[in-house]
Amino acid sequence: MMYSDIPTAQTLVLYFKSRGVKNIVISPGSRNAPLTISFTKNPFFNCFSIVDERCAAFFAMGMAQHLQEPVAVLCSSGSALLNFYPAVAEAYYSDIPLIVVSADRPGYRIDIGDGQTIRQENVLEKHIGYSANLKQDVSHAAQTISKYGKTLLESSQNEIQAYNEKEIAKALSVAFDEKYPVHINIPFEEPLYGRVEEPTVKIQDFETPNSKADLEEDWEGLAKIWKESSRKMVLVGVNQPNAIEADVLDMLANDPNTVLFTETTSNLHHPNFFESIDSIIAPIEKSENKEELFQKLRPELLITFGGLIVSKKIKAFLREYKPKQHWHIDTKKANDTFYCLTKHIKTNPNQFFKRMGTNGSGESDFKAFWEQKKDNYERKRMAYLEGIPFSDFTAFDRIIKTIPKGYQVHLANSSTVRYAQLFAMDKSLKVFCNRGTSGIDGSTSTAVGSSIYSKGPTVLLTGDLSFFYDSNALWNRYMRPDFRIVLINNSGGGIFRILPGKEDTEEFETFFETSHELTARHLAEMYGFEHVVVENEAEMEASLESFYSESEKPKIMEVATPRVLNNKILLGYFDFIS
Amino acid sequence: MMYSDIPTAQTLVLYFKSRGVKNIVISPGSRNAPLTISFTKNPFFNCFSIVDERCAAFFAMGMAQHLQEPVAVLCSSGSALLNFYPAVAEAYYSDIPLIVVSADRPGYRIDIGDGQTIRQENVLEKHIGYSANLKQDVSHAAQTISKYGKTLLESSQNEIQAYNEKEIAKALSVAFDEKYPVHINIPFEEPLYGRVEEPTVKIQDFETPNSKADLEEDWEGLAKIWKESSRKMVLVGVNQPNAIEADVLDMLANDPNTVLFTETTSNLHHPNFFESIDSIIAPIEKSENKEELFQKLRPELLITFGGLIVSKKIKAFLREYKPKQHWHIDTKKANDTFYCLTKHIKTNPNQFFKRMGTNGSGESDFKAFWEQKKDNYERKRMAYLEGIPFSDFTAFDRIIKTIPKGYQVHLANSSTVRYAQLFAMDKSLKVFCNRGTSGIDGSTSTAVGSSIYSKGPTVLLTGDLSFFYDSNALWNRYMRPDFRIVLINNSGGGIFRILPGKEDTEEFETFFETSHELTARHLAEMYGFEHVVVENEAEMEASLESFYSESEKPKIMEVATPRVLNNKILLGYFDFIS
Repeated sequence: MMYSDIPTAQTLVLYFKSRGVKNIVISPGSRNAPLTISFTKNPFFNCFSIVDERCAAFFAMGMAQHLQEPVAVLCSSGSALLNFYPAVAEAYYSDIPLIVVSADRPGYRIDIGDGQTIRQENVLEKHIGYSANLKQDVSHAAQTISKYGKTLLESSQNEIQAYNEKEIAKALSVAFDEKYPVHINIPFEEPLYGRVEEPTVKIQDFETPNSKADLEEDWEGLAKIWKESSRKMVLVGVNQPNAIEADVLDMLANDPNTVLFTETTSNLHHPNFFESIDSIIAPIEKSENKEELFQKLRPELLITFGGLIVSKKIKAFLREYKPKQHWHIDTKKANDTFYCLTKHIKTNPNQFFKRMGTNGSGESDFKAFWEQKKDNYERKRMAYLEGIPFSDFTAFDRIIKTIPKGYQVHLANSSTVRYAQLFAMDKSLKVFCNRGTSGIDGSTSTAVGSSIYSKGPTVLLTGDLSFFYDSNALWNRYMRPDFRIVLINNSGGGIFRILPGKEDTEEFETFFETSHELTARHLAEMYGFEHVVVENEAEMEASLESFYSESEKPKIMEVATPRVLNNKILLGYFDFIS
Repeated sequence: MMYSDIPTAQTLVLYFKSRGVKNIVISPGSRNAPLTISFTKNPFFNCFSIVDERCAAFFAMGMAQHLQEPVAVLCSSGSALLNFYPAVAEAYYSDIPLIVVSADRPGYRIDIGDGQTIRQENVLEKHIGYSANLKQDVSHAAQTISKYGKTLLESSQNEIQAYNEKEIAKALSVAFDEKYPVHINIPFEEPLYGRVEEPTVKIQDFETPNSKADLEEDWEGLAKIWKESSRKMVLVGVNQPNAIEADVLDMLANDPNTVLFTETTSNLHHPNFFESIDSIIAPIEKSENKEELFQKLRPELLITFGGLIVSKKIKAFLREYKPKQHWHIDTKKANDTFYCLTKHIKTNPNQFFKRMGTNGSGESDFKAFWEQKKDNYERKRMAYLEGIPFSDFTAFDRIIKTIPKGYQVHLANSSTVRYAQLFAMDKSLKVFCNRGTSGIDGSTSTAVGSSIYSKGPTVLLTGDLSFFYDSNALWNRYMRPDFRIVLINNSGGGIFRILPGKEDTEEFETFFETSHELTARHLAEMYGFEHVVVENEAEMEASLESFYSESEKPKIMEVATPRVLNNKILLGYFDFIS
């Protein structure tokens, strides 16, 4: 065991140990040496080294998402910290407790022309649960006072120690209790490499009381509305696997007055649930009876839980055909996604639905009607798949069908997660996607971080822009040999061809679609992946036979699909099922 | 010619045209379509498409640095903008007018659970010259009011138009006059793809008066001090090539009372200047007469101009042996880098030195004494080079000596720029390095952006961590065939071996040095570069013979040096010349 000789560094490490923050992702640097030394020389911690800070933060975030506990990411001073920001914003909107720790220069070195020095305090403040700006230890500050003639000693070391401890405790409580990312900024004075065998600091282990109490609710009143509503819609956003208990699911699945819409990222499965929202709504949009059908789908009571919703169609529908009531069930927050939120019920969904009990006496044909529609599109989808050529659409169908049971599945933004909505996932699969900000900037890094402690293997389904954007995700020593990447390479941002502005001009191809001719072959060689390119159905089927089998190296299957044809086939699907 | 039908989009484009902002770097997206359409369909603008926003912003910054004029970088909504932040911070501290334009969702779509939506307004505020948060056009807002029941119409369209114009004008004036990066955030409502042939908006072309007036100075008083000082030191930071007039240089070079210290990034050359600060100071640090020699080097009057200083040794020296007076010459700002700034003289260095005139009557031996030392270390360096094996040190010597005349030279952080300080650059070379934040995050992208309009070819000298970190810099269609990269690959962050904390443990290699076995070969193939690896002097010499000759593809020369030996040779150098 070894600690930095700097009190604040010891204090942070002791608090992390006390609270059980075990996983530390470290980007290299010198200013953060006091922390790097203390973490890496202490067997309590599992440390990971990742050079590109953007990847490091997404990697840590993926790990925190998987473990459902805080994971720390540590960097040196300067623009390093800014490279964490995309992952911090994702964590902020996805309720993931990422703990950002940045080493800083002493305050008197900021804005005087020193290198690797920016204004780090509160720099993430627009997307952070808490910013703890620690103060510099007196013991170290004292050495520099005579040198620079600056007043640094506003407080005694005891006061600074207590202040820093309380700030650290507060930040950790926000991460643990509120599932927000937090930022701890620590100024360090040189020398940075001093070590001691035992900590010289004894922490007081301040607790920050969790102020959240379950709000008292008029449960009887809510249950009455629940029972009396003959048209209820439950819509589930991003949701952890196994979060909802089986009897709750059964109750909901068997309620004739409830239509339950899931997304791939909801991780909820039941034959009675509606798993492809867009396949229900698109045909209505195209129907001559559009108004009548939308009125028929409009719920009296909308209940939502989980994180963000992928489907644009359901958002547009519910914003236009507003329910009488919209309740969101979540201990933390409620987004007014459809501009009609009437109630934020601060409990978890299991508790909530148990209190609602089973349905009331009156049964409606609400669900039955839509189940017919569902049977219809499922049948038509099968027919459609048989008639179309090899493309994104057929590839996703086969890829999703052939993922072995129990895999953790990561979906990249944005085409990938949208395509995945159209096909049923096996219920044994655990599905994740960065839907907080829906960026393409860290999908691969997130998947890699999430794979580290996964009991089973992980497969990432990704498009080409996301994959090449985050190629540094492969630059680390933690890639498991059972990690798999399916890269749908349609030579550009295929999603832009689906948008209304598309056209066949060079400007479009360059500035929207950003067409390219890259392949993953070189990156695979560089980072030690097996790699295969498949260009048609037969090649894909042949490759799928061994793709998931055990191997010494991780693998990439690159599926080359026709750039221009894909969007026609996707749009054709919605026509066909209508 | 074609414009978006959205008034704010037209307004921005018309202001850019009016002010002469011609170069627009675009990262793909849908929310920014109104701007992408307007810029790309208008021959006034030169548009560049770069997918990875981090690279796009550094590319734009490099271009702005080269052109010495504002360049815009445009992105869609969401975390895209956050990926610009590292370049924005670099631009902020390096006085480069990068214009960040972010498309945003309308305000009522923020924090309600919509995808690709973050809090964009003022998000860069800690490192930005100005944040213009434009308002949404009424014409578009009106369509959504009934739908969402939100109050959007606080102002009339005329008021909004005037507000937006003034904000754009203000941001542009800060970029043009104060050389700060600025941020313009623009909310756009759907539909985003509407077009018109001619703009429907007529801008009023507001001017923001430049409030900067040359401060009145007591020039006579300053000149008196100048003339009477027998020990003057002029220290030059990052400085544009050809910024200082020849007669000013001659005057300074021939003043026996003035020692002029340059760095590689100063772009100043004269046989009488001192071009390797560390080679002067390191021997003093090791000398038995350290105190006496430092007192002998201590100036009465320190004059600085240009940007940030690379040498840590000169900073430590001047902070300890403070001059009586420190004047910084710059129209914009003065860093108190040595904690003894007595005067910020707001003019440009040419004006300043002309007003100081030649030296006074009394001549000191100040410069003569240090010139001896300089001759000494230059002789010893030659001897040292002859006796050491192939390494970073010998490689940099040869590489810097063999760059053809007139090249633009980009140096990556941080080993590269530090090594470069030790060797003289030919005066025809124009040298650049990101020393604002001194990050490794965008050196390659900056060099590529800077090369686009360069009259001659560009060579980037870089280390392995910087190069692999920013490998997406090569992902674009604008690479000139005369672009050259010399990659010094010592299999990790060699600089960490020079720091006091180094040790030969696995922790050190993993978490500080981050040793690796990567080569650029695969990236070269992927992005269409010629590539060669040289592992010793003979191979390097052979390769150098044709490396700069004309070619169809850009080229990478990868110089493999011994990871563990390098730092011993560097430290040995300072011993040898002492």
